[in-house]
Amino acid sequence: MTDVITSAAEAAAADAADPLAEHRAKFALRAGLVYLDGNSLGAMPVDAPALIDDAARRQWGQDLIESWNANGWWDAPVRIGDRIGRLIGAKAGQVICGDSTSIQLFQALSGALRLNPDRRVLLTDGGNFPTDQYIADSVGRLLGVEVRRISPADAVTALGSGSRSGIGEIAAVSFSAVDYRTGELWDVEAITAAAHAHGAAVVWDLAHAAGALPVHLDDLDAGAGADFAVGCSYKYLNGGPGAPAWLYINARHQATADLPLTGWQGHAEPFALHQHYAPAEGIARGRIGTPPLLSMLALDAALDIFDAADLEQVRAKSLALTDLVLRYAADHLADLGVVAATPAEHHRRGSQVALRLPRAYEAAQALIEAGVVGDFRAPDILRLGFAPLYLTHAQVWGAMETLETILRTGAHLDPRFAIRAAVT
Amino acid sequence: MTDVITSAAEAAAADAADPLAEHRAKFALRAGLVYLDGNSLGAMPVDAPALIDDAARRQWGQDLIESWNANGWWDAPVRIGDRIGRLIGAKAGQVICGDSTSIQLFQALSGALRLNPDRRVLLTDGGNFPTDQYIADSVGRLLGVEVRRISPADAVTALGSGSRSGIGEIAAVSFSAVDYRTGELWDVEAITAAAHAHGAAVVWDLAHAAGALPVHLDDLDAGAGADFAVGCSYKYLNGGPGAPAWLYINARHQATADLPLTGWQGHAEPFALHQHYAPAEGIARGRIGTPPLLSMLALDAALDIFDAADLEQVRAKSLALTDLVLRYAADHLADLGVVAATPAEHHRRGSQVALRLPRAYEAAQALIEAGVVGDFRAPDILRLGFAPLYLTHAQVWGAMETLETILRTGAHLDPRFAIRAAVT
Repeated sequence: MTDVITSAAEAAAADAADPLAEHRAKFALRAGLVYLDGNSLGAMPVDAPALIDDAARRQWGQDLIESWNANGWWDAPVRIGDRIGRLIGAKAGQVICGDSTSIQLFQALSGALRLNPDRRVLLTDGGNFPTDQYIADSVGRLLGVEVRRISPADAVTALGSGSRSGIGEIAAVSFSAVDYRTGELWDVEAITAAAHAHGAAVVWDLAHAAGALPVHLDDLDAGAGADFAVGCSYKYLNGGPGAPAWLYINARHQATADLPLTGWQGHAEPFALHQHYAPAEGIARGRIGTPPLLSMLALDAALDIFDAADLEQVRAKSLALTDLVLRYAADHLADLGVVAATPAEHHRRGSQVALRLPRAYEAAQALIEAGVVGDFRAPDILRLGFAPLYLTHAQVWGAMETLETILRTGAHLDPRFAIRAAVT
Repeated sequence: MTDVITSAAEAAAADAADPLAEHRAKFALRAGLVYLDGNSLGAMPVDAPALIDDAARRQWGQDLIESWNANGWWDAPVRIGDRIGRLIGAKAGQVICGDSTSIQLFQALSGALRLNPDRRVLLTDGGNFPTDQYIADSVGRLLGVEVRRISPADAVTALGSGSRSGIGEIAAVSFSAVDYRTGELWDVEAITAAAHAHGAAVVWDLAHAAGALPVHLDDLDAGAGADFAVGCSYKYLNGGPGAPAWLYINARHQATADLPLTGWQGHAEPFALHQHYAPAEGIARGRIGTPPLLSMLALDAALDIFDAADLEQVRAKSLALTDLVLRYAADHLADLGVVAATPAEHHRRGSQVALRLPRAYEAAQALIEAGVVGDFRAPDILRLGFAPLYLTHAQVWGAMETLETILRTGAHLDPRFAIRAAVT
């Protein structure tokens, strides 16, 4: 890694040398906006509206039902799944695109637990994003499995690392790779290996990892790979609001994966109109119902950009940006009560920085008014996300200066920044 | 009802007097196309592309995360749900828009069965659309409930109509209002009443009914109403390919409906980030994950058209069109081996006609080449759907003449009309 950026001049120099600089123009962002919320909703690729318009006017409006074949609608969940797979270290035929992350979690957790029907415990993170916890509880209730909550930091110990006895009580382990609040990156490799040593299947939620850092799902645990994974495509993947999520099923489980959402598109013979379900071969068994095609096809424009981007460069720039923020906070904001909740070590950090501070909600609102969009997470976190494909180092430096000015002047204490609803 | 149309001149006269004629120009259909597949994918409203483009360029591209509040994204599933509710006789606050029909069936069947935890039978239609049957089997397996298949024609008898004893063994009944293959409209009123008399909850799948004929969910069984209902919005509602489905939960069940897909958006306090699920008040408990907004907002354009259309007029025109087809088939096609699978009685007919004929697949393909788009359903059905908002009587008369010409000349027996995949 290069040195941490500690001045506007160094930020400008980093931009001049940025190998990802060419990608910035591929996103539509209004002038003056510093968008640090790409971990919630990614920016729009400038090519997206034309693709969406074609999907509407030509494919839907003119070709109508013929589009299922003529315009590749039927294959879209598999084709786009493969495009996502390339960003998370999954060989072709292991990722299906569709539905929401909540739905894909329901599939993955059920599928993972059913691999181990004699075990009655699902391990998850008590700090996990709410939907992960709610779906875990619902699946646990349906399958008669106890849901046990621990921190991913304690997972390797809990699973009894090193043992290859395979006689543990835990059927499946479900964590997010990156904590949605603090931005902490957990040890995906060690936890996967420990889970397998315990005889448990592992389900990774990559909502805050896919597109932000390299993930190597197939390579985990010496090539055994993860068992299941899910993620959304509207954060770092820039697929658009509510863009369809995705499900990874490792190839070795595809012949037996027993998924509960048995929609007709996942049937082995979807057009034969059988009375009883028989899952399709391969990843197609992850299909459920008819996918929302306008939303799904918007994703293509975003994935075109990733095809031309090096995820190692994305990761390097992400760390440079978060290094900058953490250093700035330590050097300039500590006296204002700002404390980083995000780990200092690179290997423990995703692509966001969470700053704990007094009146964090109001600070987030004042920043938005000043053109710096991050978000607030209860109770006291200012969450700043960094999408390296469309941010500059200078923007991030400027955002930190803006934050310091707001906090020093107390601008955020103005009553107009009163509490209102926010969205993940 | 007026007399059945038996000539091109009568068809032209019916068009001249058509009170729905003004709506035809609101749909984009290529010149020369006679589109009889609106029961699979509805035509595109001409206003849809502009609405979709605004959702992309302005709402996503410019307003970004602020759109959740500023552009009403958060409220869209409830707002659009209410718009759909008006078309199926549901008062506001009982319909939520989102996900696919398969997912909503999973919610509805689970919710219905959990209303009656002491009963162990789910009654469904062995001829129901495959996804309905597959999801029923999956839910039955998860909840330990036997799935029993009968024809809706036998449902009232099976439920023991007239008894108000409420001591039956059937927990829930799940049928489609209109058979997707034959177009038969079942007796929604009688089955609902019989189910309630038996003490069972009823789940209606309105995929082939919503937007095609008036449905009065709240009024069924002397005002008790249906218990749950689901449907898609890309058929007669013209919401676009894979447009989000919807779920109706009768208001009287909303305080207790126990749904398994416990996504964070259905939580009572979605932004408080609790560890455990507590459902929201009202229909919001039917929310799951983040909805596909580009697809969802396209629906608005289609619903604008319905706001200005009278569903009783839609129904009257639908019956005139299907009367025409049935009469034509009886008068001109019987000697060619064509037999109607769709009932002759109006009260038993949805908005499609299914014709059984030899080489039905090839006939469907030859019709497409001749500009008449219907579809094939195994093993021998030519399925013709009638969307009264954008079809003319003259088009339908012409389509029948085209079909007769094809069958009499054997044009469909050309080898280029070989079997390939088709989509519902």
